[in-house]
Amino acid sequence: MRVLQRRLADFAAARRWLPYHTPKNLVAALSVEAAELVEIFQWLTPEESAQVMDSPGTAARVEDEVADVLAYLLQFCQTLGIDPAAALSAKIERNEKRFPLPDTPDRHSPE
Amino acid sequence: MRVLQRRLADFAAARRWLPYHTPKNLVAALSVEAAELVEIFQWLTPEESAQVMDSPGTAARVEDEVADVLAYLLQFCQTLGIDPAAALSAKIERNEKRFPLPDTPDRHSPE
Amino acid sequence: MRVLQRRLADFAAARRWLPYHTPKNLVAALSVEAAELVEIFQWLTPEESAQVMDSPGTAARVEDEVADVLAYLLQFCQTLGIDPAAALSAKIERNEKRFPLPDTPDRHSPE
Amino acid sequence: MRVLQRRLADFAAARRWLPYHTPKNLVAALSVEAAELVEIFQWLTPEESAQVMDSPGTAARVEDEVADVLAYLLQFCQTLGIDPAAALSAKIERNEKRFPLPDTPDRHSPE
Repeated sequence: MRVLQRRLADFAAARRWLPYHTPKNLVAALSVEAAELVEIFQWLTPEESAQVMDSPGTAARVEDEVADVLAYLLQFCQTLGIDPAAALSAKIERNEKRFPLPDTPDRHSPE
Repeated sequence: MRVLQRRLADFAAARRWLPYHTPKNLVAALSVEAAELVEIFQWLTPEESAQVMDSPGTAARVEDEVADVLAYLLQFCQTLGIDPAAALSAKIERNEKRFPLPDTPDRHSPE
Repeated sequence: MRVLQRRLADFAAARRWLPYHTPKNLVAALSVEAAELVEIFQWLTPEESAQVMDSPGTAARVEDEVADVLAYLLQFCQTLGIDPAAALSAKIERNEKRFPLPDTPDRHSPE
Repeated sequence: MRVLQRRLADFAAARRWLPYHTPKNLVAALSVEAAELVEIFQWLTPEESAQVMDSPGTAARVEDEVADVLAYLLQFCQTLGIDPAAALSAKIERNEKRFPLPDTPDRHSPE
């Protein structure tokens, strides 16, 4: 992800876009891209939503929006000095405590 | 990112959450988490938005929401077989053609 | 809606919140409240989503978020001098031209 | 708003769109339209955001998105039997208790 962050930063700097890239603006842009992803799915049934990659046109659109979401997330993190992978790793650990696994029969099964 | 995707998939499978993880539901959840990030910034000036990491409480909240956005993005991609880093790399290449760099004096400088 | 707009404006003015109510901030807040509404529905099936008002707790939450969305929409419109009902009425007229009704058998039925 | 709700319901029914209008889908569409409004403002400064109605093209775009947000909000409320004006009125009353006005010198001034 660091290579991608570096390419995004170079890209924006070369086009003199960095003054627009305040954290506030970047999260707005992130939420707009997330909504563009939602838009693809908004009228689909759950079953149809699982088939979107079968249509090359829709698949390309989905991948394009995924790229936009990731791009703004990485630029936001870069601007504020956040390591997104470390943040997610820490969150998974907190969630493992918050949502402990239910005891299951085989874990409790007699030796 | 693959390690994180694996941990997220195991986490959800162990809690029997996978039936809820349709692509449609995952993008909705992604957009909700993006909005929770926006909420932190919604009343801030551009200048204040650049200082959010100075407050430990706000910094933790920002990192927590970044983790949630990344988590849903990775789970969405996993469900549909999308490689988010490859999607972003391809997008940057398309953008380099779409937004070509302006000619600059030194690139045009006489030999 | 004008009475509600007046009450919202008085409420914000009395609490000296108006400096925060730039159009940019108000649309961010609007999108956050819309996402809070989405959050209620994100893991529900289409069928479950039609039953949310059966639970008094969920019904109150839905109404609360509807109020928040409408509040920020009205304040945004007030700030920019937009009449939301007139805007919607004009849009419906445009849509009637954009999506004309299909000819139906009985409209074309022989005399 | 009731007249607009009736027109929207007739419009959707005539086009046989009602099966798509589950509450879950309508809130997704509402959030997408709110994001389209955010998109207009995402790179603007607070000052620029206050001037958007000065450009006829941008003004038309803003009014169009306002209409879309209101349309989906009204259709969502219609589907679930919610009165949005009553919900907002009740919310303002709750907020008046939640954010009481600070005592001000002249309210406390001796007679």
